[in-house]
Amino acid sequence: MSGLLWPGDHRAGDIFTDAAFLDAMVRVEAAWSVALVAAGVAPAGAELDVDALRSLLTDADLESVAVEAESGGNPVIPLVRLLRSRLGAGPAATWLHRGLTSQDVVDSALMCCAADAVAAISSALDSQVTILTRCAVEHRRSPMVARTLTQQAVPTTFGLKSALWLRGVLDARERLELLRFPVQLGGAGGTSAAVVELAGADADIAAVVAECTTVAARELGLEPTTPWHSVRSALTRIGDAAVECTDAWGHVANDVMALSRTEIGELSEGAGGGSSTMPHKSNPVLSVLIRRAAIAGPPLASALHLAAADAVDERTPGGWHVEWDTLRTLLRRAVVAGDQTTSLLDDLRVHTERMAENLASAGAAVTSEQSTMAEIAGHRAASEYFGAADQFIDAQLERAHATTQKNG
Amino acid sequence: MSGLLWPGDHRAGDIFTDAAFLDAMVRVEAAWSVALVAAGVAPAGAELDVDALRSLLTDADLESVAVEAESGGNPVIPLVRLLRSRLGAGPAATWLHRGLTSQDVVDSALMCCAADAVAAISSALDSQVTILTRCAVEHRRSPMVARTLTQQAVPTTFGLKSALWLRGVLDARERLELLRFPVQLGGAGGTSAAVVELAGADADIAAVVAECTTVAARELGLEPTTPWHSVRSALTRIGDAAVECTDAWGHVANDVMALSRTEIGELSEGAGGGSSTMPHKSNPVLSVLIRRAAIAGPPLASALHLAAADAVDERTPGGWHVEWDTLRTLLRRAVVAGDQTTSLLDDLRVHTERMAENLASAGAAVTSEQSTMAEIAGHRAASEYFGAADQFIDAQLERAHATTQKNG
Amino acid sequence: MSGLLWPGDHRAGDIFTDAAFLDAMVRVEAAWSVALVAAGVAPAGAELDVDALRSLLTDADLESVAVEAESGGNPVIPLVRLLRSRLGAGPAATWLHRGLTSQDVVDSALMCCAADAVAAISSALDSQVTILTRCAVEHRRSPMVARTLTQQAVPTTFGLKSALWLRGVLDARERLELLRFPVQLGGAGGTSAAVVELAGADADIAAVVAECTTVAARELGLEPTTPWHSVRSALTRIGDAAVECTDAWGHVANDVMALSRTEIGELSEGAGGGSSTMPHKSNPVLSVLIRRAAIAGPPLASALHLAAADAVDERTPGGWHVEWDTLRTLLRRAVVAGDQTTSLLDDLRVHTERMAENLASAGAAVTSEQSTMAEIAGHRAASEYFGAADQFIDAQLERAHATTQKNG
Amino acid sequence: MSGLLWPGDHRAGDIFTDAAFLDAMVRVEAAWSVALVAAGVAPAGAELDVDALRSLLTDADLESVAVEAESGGNPVIPLVRLLRSRLGAGPAATWLHRGLTSQDVVDSALMCCAADAVAAISSALDSQVTILTRCAVEHRRSPMVARTLTQQAVPTTFGLKSALWLRGVLDARERLELLRFPVQLGGAGGTSAAVVELAGADADIAAVVAECTTVAARELGLEPTTPWHSVRSALTRIGDAAVECTDAWGHVANDVMALSRTEIGELSEGAGGGSSTMPHKSNPVLSVLIRRAAIAGPPLASALHLAAADAVDERTPGGWHVEWDTLRTLLRRAVVAGDQTTSLLDDLRVHTERMAENLASAGAAVTSEQSTMAEIAGHRAASEYFGAADQFIDAQLERAHATTQKNG
Repeated sequence: MSGLLWPGDHRAGDIFTDAAFLDAMVRVEAAWSVALVAAGVAPAGAELDVDALRSLLTDADLESVAVEAESGGNPVIPLVRLLRSRLGAGPAATWLHRGLTSQDVVDSALMCCAADAVAAISSALDSQVTILTRCAVEHRRSPMVARTLTQQAVPTTFGLKSALWLRGVLDARERLELLRFPVQLGGAGGTSAAVVELAGADADIAAVVAECTTVAARELGLEPTTPWHSVRSALTRIGDAAVECTDAWGHVANDVMALSRTEIGELSEGAGGGSSTMPHKSNPVLSVLIRRAAIAGPPLASALHLAAADAVDERTPGGWHVEWDTLRTLLRRAVVAGDQTTSLLDDLRVHTERMAENLASAGAAVTSEQSTMAEIAGHRAASEYFGAADQFIDAQLERAHATTQKNG
Repeated sequence: MSGLLWPGDHRAGDIFTDAAFLDAMVRVEAAWSVALVAAGVAPAGAELDVDALRSLLTDADLESVAVEAESGGNPVIPLVRLLRSRLGAGPAATWLHRGLTSQDVVDSALMCCAADAVAAISSALDSQVTILTRCAVEHRRSPMVARTLTQQAVPTTFGLKSALWLRGVLDARERLELLRFPVQLGGAGGTSAAVVELAGADADIAAVVAECTTVAARELGLEPTTPWHSVRSALTRIGDAAVECTDAWGHVANDVMALSRTEIGELSEGAGGGSSTMPHKSNPVLSVLIRRAAIAGPPLASALHLAAADAVDERTPGGWHVEWDTLRTLLRRAVVAGDQTTSLLDDLRVHTERMAENLASAGAAVTSEQSTMAEIAGHRAASEYFGAADQFIDAQLERAHATTQKNG
Repeated sequence: MSGLLWPGDHRAGDIFTDAAFLDAMVRVEAAWSVALVAAGVAPAGAELDVDALRSLLTDADLESVAVEAESGGNPVIPLVRLLRSRLGAGPAATWLHRGLTSQDVVDSALMCCAADAVAAISSALDSQVTILTRCAVEHRRSPMVARTLTQQAVPTTFGLKSALWLRGVLDARERLELLRFPVQLGGAGGTSAAVVELAGADADIAAVVAECTTVAARELGLEPTTPWHSVRSALTRIGDAAVECTDAWGHVANDVMALSRTEIGELSEGAGGGSSTMPHKSNPVLSVLIRRAAIAGPPLASALHLAAADAVDERTPGGWHVEWDTLRTLLRRAVVAGDQTTSLLDDLRVHTERMAENLASAGAAVTSEQSTMAEIAGHRAASEYFGAADQFIDAQLERAHATTQKNG
Repeated sequence: MSGLLWPGDHRAGDIFTDAAFLDAMVRVEAAWSVALVAAGVAPAGAELDVDALRSLLTDADLESVAVEAESGGNPVIPLVRLLRSRLGAGPAATWLHRGLTSQDVVDSALMCCAADAVAAISSALDSQVTILTRCAVEHRRSPMVARTLTQQAVPTTFGLKSALWLRGVLDARERLELLRFPVQLGGAGGTSAAVVELAGADADIAAVVAECTTVAARELGLEPTTPWHSVRSALTRIGDAAVECTDAWGHVANDVMALSRTEIGELSEGAGGGSSTMPHKSNPVLSVLIRRAAIAGPPLASALHLAAADAVDERTPGGWHVEWDTLRTLLRRAVVAGDQTTSLLDDLRVHTERMAENLASAGAAVTSEQSTMAEIAGHRAASEYFGAADQFIDAQLERAHATTQKNG
């Protein structure tokens, strides 16, 4: 529903939509059925093909499942009821969802959708690494004035500024790399008691549970692990990482907005946005929309932590339910902002002559520190005052190169 | 899009949906055309009937306006373009939106949608006042144990607990009563220069602007005021008030969840939620979903403040854009939680016998304070230890009565 | 402890320091003793003079009470123990704290300290109303360019900008005016059972409790009310109002920072801050520190709401404890930011000639809207394009006048 | 100043106090002087011994530096002025702080203090790993009822609950392990231009800057890196990790509070807190205080992200200043909560008989799922229903063992 009120939302496409989440829940049920059969717990006829399961649902079901989700507090209950009724009699219906609890399905589906979103974000970051690498190299020797606390300070280069944007992007990329997307499979109390009971008294508990977990995780592209119903680090880390991304992009957007102020004019967006009434205006619209995400993100990530910190018993009442739409909103917005940042950087206009003019017109103000230093050192001031800007650029270019090599 | 991941979302119906917001923007444009004609700025043919304007749009336009909103950063630009093209030649198309800026349309539309949401919330609070009044009266003499820091402490009555829930609800109702929903009409720079220019050199500026504002506000059911482009108190106050509501409801939900714990059993939801695997379970599902809103609300309200605090120049880049979906999400969720709280209270099962048993089984633990007090005062302990519970109940009943008289 | 890491903290002086809070708790105990005697519950000898009670404590006690506060979870327990031991035998020691619970003392003391902080903030806002009124009048006709989304847009006046700052300040002042500071007196379970027991079986419960509440509230300068242990609206409203203040000040600071950018130069702080290495720099330091408060405030106010929303039973485990230092930090910082904003405005340098130059150099860009409007209206463009700026200024000046009359 | 209003604050001792921060700033200046001499930039006489530098300051200076910090916006300016004046004439005074900017000193000092806090937190987590390992082993076969959404669900063991607490603690430990504490050394514009100028035209820029950075970082126990003035990932990661810790501890505290409810009685704190008026009460005070930190933490971590996302130019006005006290408060509270959690776990009373009773009295309610499963599988229900609890415990014990081996 956020399209009209979150311009650019369409950039995230189908990622983590309601339909995508419904599909992910279906995939979890199918994967589990494969696992049950593989582990010898259920008979072969219980195995469900994911496409067959999908075909049982129509678009209209999304609405009804959503509405019916309220009475039990989550969408799994109506979904399982619906699937069972459509599967008709037989082992598939009998074995569907056996050994799982609602939280298993919701959490695993959240992880599937989150992984898709993180993949899109990673891809955007990779593109940005490429663009910013090029930018830092190209503008290694484009002088501009460094500004601190809004005031002109000393000389720097746009290459170094680009390299700092790159640093933030690389940090965010590194953080995403550490994320894990664990499957959730623990049953009602997180003991997997139901599947163990289903396997029967003679079964090797460890082997059955390991097989079920491994197979289901593999089917879903998630990481096998023991149940984490009440330990939500996997989710909060995704949220924190998403915000580390929006922080990095916000930094870029702030600089673009500041430097594209009419009076400064050192940067401008390639396709600035128009106005409903002033035809001449060219607003830094992408930057504005990216900054929006950077402001709105941290409170959402904090909501994920508040939910995690609320954990109690073997399923958290309320805290768990906060996570679903919060994680989705945070990640979709990060996907949008990531793509917008790539567009912004890809089409950024760098007005090097204006940078040089602004620096020149600053005059003695930006050379006073240099004079003091030269005096202390007892020599004449050097002709330039860019310090180790080149070396600092190189440090980020090296990281970028290593990251690119690694991520392909 | 939040239906599946925010169970109960359907309770908010059409309030503040994308479609509702699009319609509100159309209403703003129509209201403004009425105002321009009323003030003698535009010719009679420029007046637009809101239904006629609505009829120019189809459902498919919602999607395209949403997508096209990105290039200028807001949905007004594509909407105005679309309406102009469909109005064809003539004064209506010529005068559409003249004197307005995008922010006028978005902000006024936000206020229209917010007013609808607040009306729904107020109505829910009114119902809760009625139910809780009845509950406090009925259980005025239903003894139970007061618990502090999770431990049994001294006797109280369920009537007094109900009266404290009522206090929170009355506070929230009082806070909503103070809200104002101002129209936004300032033009590009917040000076109304365009409409003054349109009115011509001979016009009485004060009169023209006052007439336009008054008429447009009246058409929209909003409050006339001078422009507030960069002063966002009206929005933050709505957000704060919404959170005061979810605080009050969260308090109720927390108590219901604690007291419906299996081992305590003093309260239960009328229609507890089931489990996907344990047929016997009756979960306090409404309470769980209400608590969800109480946790998720404060970070959203803080995002509105962060946006307000980010105000700069005559239109805030990013901060303004944060508000739209944030306000919508916060208010829709409050509408949902309000309705859920009404349902919860309406159908709450109060197990007075269990309350009495728990109190009785507490034994000396909950009477020790009384003994100490009696000893200090030099008399025998009274037979009861409910203090002024009755008087404290009465105080809230009186407030409730006054509120009902006023709003009823 | 925040002095070194929150520059300007000293501006808040003794408001809501640990020492001030300890003193407020002592005042609560003294006020209650007066109330008990006035209500005829305790003998005359039980009345404690606040100065006599204060004199029992030395500076060293602050540290020990703070350390010992942990074992019971709040500072009242060690304080009462200490005061009792120093009062020695007699009715004063016997009656000290009788009928109260820790939460009564902490909550009432919080309200005393909050009231002091709010008074200081109100006073700062009043000063700002005076300064901004003067500024809006003085610069009613100082032309400058309005900027939207960072870009030059249309003409405006600095008088109107000042009037918008004033609008925010007046809104905040209005919000503070609505705050109430209720006394908390409910005893262990919020029933006032202890004081009723102390009063004896023959006492008129309503009269005793009303008298105790009225007298204690009057002694403390707080508002009499029934217990609100689990309904925290009084606190969240104070937090919300404090953030409405920092929002208003943040707006001013953002504008000052943007307009004092070297390349814009339309405003500057009277006594800009220096640099540790660049002698020529004059940073907008007060603005920077005010913006700091505007960013840091909303998360703190949201923590107060999260605490309120966590209410359960008759005393909230954890949620209640979050409030103390959070409220203190938020309010002290608001006091500091308020005073800094007064200083900032009092000494603001307005470079009207630079404003005029920037507007002039914008050229056709800022007059294009006007041309379009004139064309539509079929006349020649007026010589000016300030619209109803004067009228909008007057609207705020009138509000300011009314506020000053009322609070002055 | 937070002692009285944040009971338990003394547990953090000197970590990140104002005095500790002042000392860290002194250490940074001393380390830099060593670096300048080592790199051949400054003469040998410029090298400052840290103890000699410390000895120039008295306790009274803390207050004056704090107050004077406001005029330039940070404490470095008055500190450097003070140290220079006390060093008297000579190379030490001349070379003090040369090549640095205020942000270098503040950021590096923040990292020193943060590293100390993180070390204390890590140590607490290590203790908790040991205790929880013991607890999980001891209670591997202590049956209790699992509760979901507040209701009794199926059997589990206290050993598995302990293992889930352990999982959270291990996750947090793992997250801390990834933290880096980089030195900040970039000079006014982040180019190190001043030190390069000081080194003279013939110097090898890369070598000089590398040597200065390496030596200063080594002296401070920080990590050498290029300047990160406007890229704040290092700080936000520390904040996020601190909150991952408080999440884990909050989970423990919530369970202890729920299970120590009078009616449940399965756990109790070894030394429960008393009441100011009810001698019999034994409140779960440590849990209450830990939960406090878990609620208060996420908003503070979000403030660090908001500051990071606000980055602009080569020094962020306001966003940077938000970080100092926010990071300190968040980390000190985490140190306190970590130590409290260790105490809580160390002295936790586990009432296994009560756990068994509650499970037994649940009757058929907690065995219904098992019956359904047995029926589906076509066999008689097993005698137990703990599933793979043992295997899930072992998984965490293995992680714990690996962690202990690594960190021990």
